[in-house]
Amino acid sequence: MQAEIITIGDEILIGQIVDSNSAFIAKELNQIGVSVYQITSVQDDREHITNALQEAGERSSVIIVTGGLGPTKDDVTKETLCNFFGDTLVQDQAVLEHIEELFKKYITTPISDLNRRQALVPSKATVLHNAFGTAPGLWMKKGDVSYFFLPGVPYEMKNLITSSVLPKIMETYERPYIVHKTLLTYGMGESAIAEKIESWENSLPRHIKLAYLPNLGRVRLRLSSKGVDREALLASVEAEAKKLYPIIGDIIYGEEEDGTIESQIGKFLTQKQMTLATAESFTGGRIAEQITTVPGASNYFKGSVVSYATETKIKVLGVPEALVEQHSVVSEEVAMAMAENVRNLLGTDFAVSTTGNAGPTKGDSDADVGTVYIGISTPRGTTAHKFAMGNHRERVVKKSVSKAFELLYKEILNF
Amino acid sequence: MQAEIITIGDEILIGQIVDSNSAFIAKELNQIGVSVYQITSVQDDREHITNALQEAGERSSVIIVTGGLGPTKDDVTKETLCNFFGDTLVQDQAVLEHIEELFKKYITTPISDLNRRQALVPSKATVLHNAFGTAPGLWMKKGDVSYFFLPGVPYEMKNLITSSVLPKIMETYERPYIVHKTLLTYGMGESAIAEKIESWENSLPRHIKLAYLPNLGRVRLRLSSKGVDREALLASVEAEAKKLYPIIGDIIYGEEEDGTIESQIGKFLTQKQMTLATAESFTGGRIAEQITTVPGASNYFKGSVVSYATETKIKVLGVPEALVEQHSVVSEEVAMAMAENVRNLLGTDFAVSTTGNAGPTKGDSDADVGTVYIGISTPRGTTAHKFAMGNHRERVVKKSVSKAFELLYKEILNF
Repeated sequence: MQAEIITIGDEILIGQIVDSNSAFIAKELNQIGVSVYQITSVQDDREHITNALQEAGERSSVIIVTGGLGPTKDDVTKETLCNFFGDTLVQDQAVLEHIEELFKKYITTPISDLNRRQALVPSKATVLHNAFGTAPGLWMKKGDVSYFFLPGVPYEMKNLITSSVLPKIMETYERPYIVHKTLLTYGMGESAIAEKIESWENSLPRHIKLAYLPNLGRVRLRLSSKGVDREALLASVEAEAKKLYPIIGDIIYGEEEDGTIESQIGKFLTQKQMTLATAESFTGGRIAEQITTVPGASNYFKGSVVSYATETKIKVLGVPEALVEQHSVVSEEVAMAMAENVRNLLGTDFAVSTTGNAGPTKGDSDADVGTVYIGISTPRGTTAHKFAMGNHRERVVKKSVSKAFELLYKEILNF
Repeated sequence: MQAEIITIGDEILIGQIVDSNSAFIAKELNQIGVSVYQITSVQDDREHITNALQEAGERSSVIIVTGGLGPTKDDVTKETLCNFFGDTLVQDQAVLEHIEELFKKYITTPISDLNRRQALVPSKATVLHNAFGTAPGLWMKKGDVSYFFLPGVPYEMKNLITSSVLPKIMETYERPYIVHKTLLTYGMGESAIAEKIESWENSLPRHIKLAYLPNLGRVRLRLSSKGVDREALLASVEAEAKKLYPIIGDIIYGEEEDGTIESQIGKFLTQKQMTLATAESFTGGRIAEQITTVPGASNYFKGSVVSYATETKIKVLGVPEALVEQHSVVSEEVAMAMAENVRNLLGTDFAVSTTGNAGPTKGDSDADVGTVYIGISTPRGTTAHKFAMGNHRERVVKKSVSKAFELLYKEILNF
């Protein structure tokens, strides 16, 4: 059983926004054993929408459509739906009351006819309650094909997916399980890895697929399998992944399904009741920000000093001016001083620091563009590591943030 | 003349990554007057790819395809291409030398046959030089339809788009201009705005389209027009947008095409030779990070103290413990102290602070979940503003970051 996702909206097609809704929906569907055959982004246009609905219905059994539902003139979807399904609009009393309730509670401007019209729904639709907004979700069928129509606003769509759409799919369709295991590697290119694991790959059982996913200097290896016995699938994928450790264990960094690296670090620190701070220069607070995406970060993260300017390193972090003059601000010595000092200043067990030259120009230091030092301070001492991260500013920053998390992760595992 | 984008890759269809390549390509195409009719994400599968290429070619004149080009077993694209175009693979000497050069210079593992095979290209293809990677881009034609095949790795794809694909499209096809003007508004919902501007909207000339784009409590109003005379288009869109200021000027916040708010702030501070710092609690460094995305931020941004823990506010920012005890850490008083103190500590002209309760639990303070204070400190004094940002943690953070930039922007305009 396969599904498709259709996103309606001109703003995607002019590149004004990135379509993140599809990734969310696809991930959720996968988790209940539904594979996504295709994702299509179409214009807010009757004909285009109708063609897309038609074609998708010929290929797949579940079609999830987002966007095109809203109170203003650029939303032509409902009439297009009535045409497609041979239906007419009727007023849904529960939806109308919900809209009026939302306006009374949260919205200062008075309710208008435009808003009330959002309570009009195709008569054959099953209405899906949108707790966070005025546009109801709709479930309609054409033969055996289910179409779900959802608003495009991300948090409204996500709520409808988890509270209504997934349960209805699970009630209505038989589904196999889909499992993935993704190994994170770094330090070796795609084809070098492929050569090393060639015989292992050639002996993979037929029901397990391998995909190579390279990005920013690291390669993810994704094993996937689909079937009816979830335990057996997980066991077989797990078994095959294990076989890779003797072959390329030195470059395996972690497993994606265990959670993001920052959440793994967070789990570890929470268990050990240890704390963390960062002192960041060119990474501008990205490491701190990523740490704080984990719920419960306040259990172990005390804060950060983003010492973007050299003088801030000296004034706030207490890095000796002489040290900067002697070794330059992009140096092992300064990275170590930053890490150690923020650790003492904020009173934490661990600290990470970054100082480097992200480019495009050399700035305050003599170091080549792309030269970066990452410092790690722990109860056992402080070290710093040098890297050459290339000459593309945004990538230098991203790679350095990833590397900082890697080094911190490896370090704290020793405690 | 319209284009389509096809992205090849199972990782998009399982929701493991968000497709940001399409947004980039669509935006670039729009800027040279090419509208994107549809974006389709398909599996790494011969039949699926072939069908997608066929269908797209029946609808549009330029098809840009990303993904599916790489040295390992999961890339079936080149053979699929040969089938589709009735062609055979030949070795391209320049590509082979480029691959060998890249290995010699940058890659520590020795070159393999898998890599050398990346120099095999369809004989009828025009090869597009991929300076940043081993997979060459390919340009092939079927009748009047141009197909561009590019690697999926974002920085390789982006470089190929700007250095090869766009110039070739501009040389080959007549294109009209597409212009947009997007007004940023806040404080009023979509339908309330629609009612206020109804007569203005009804009198829009036929060649100008309006779209309402609501997100996170603010609505963007996008005017778009397409035609052959760029000056005239810009003038007419500009004129229509100007008419909105007397009607809803109090909620218009800025214009998207002027650049992001952080870049506008940066431009202003650079001109005035004034500086900025942030003191962030629950926003975790996001404001600092967003500031540093602007090239040249080091001209005006001195740094940040991410005082995530209450004790860090006291210890590093010098917020009096008595103040915290008296008013609670989520308070106007603490927000003002944070802003003023970081301003003095880092020696800047301006500072922004955030303290609040993002949820899900109340944490260190009595304040309701979603209660947030944003402080702004300037040479003329310090103020703080209270907001109720809802009860969804991620959204509270995002809305607060946006609001902080808004308040800072409005404030610095007075200098």
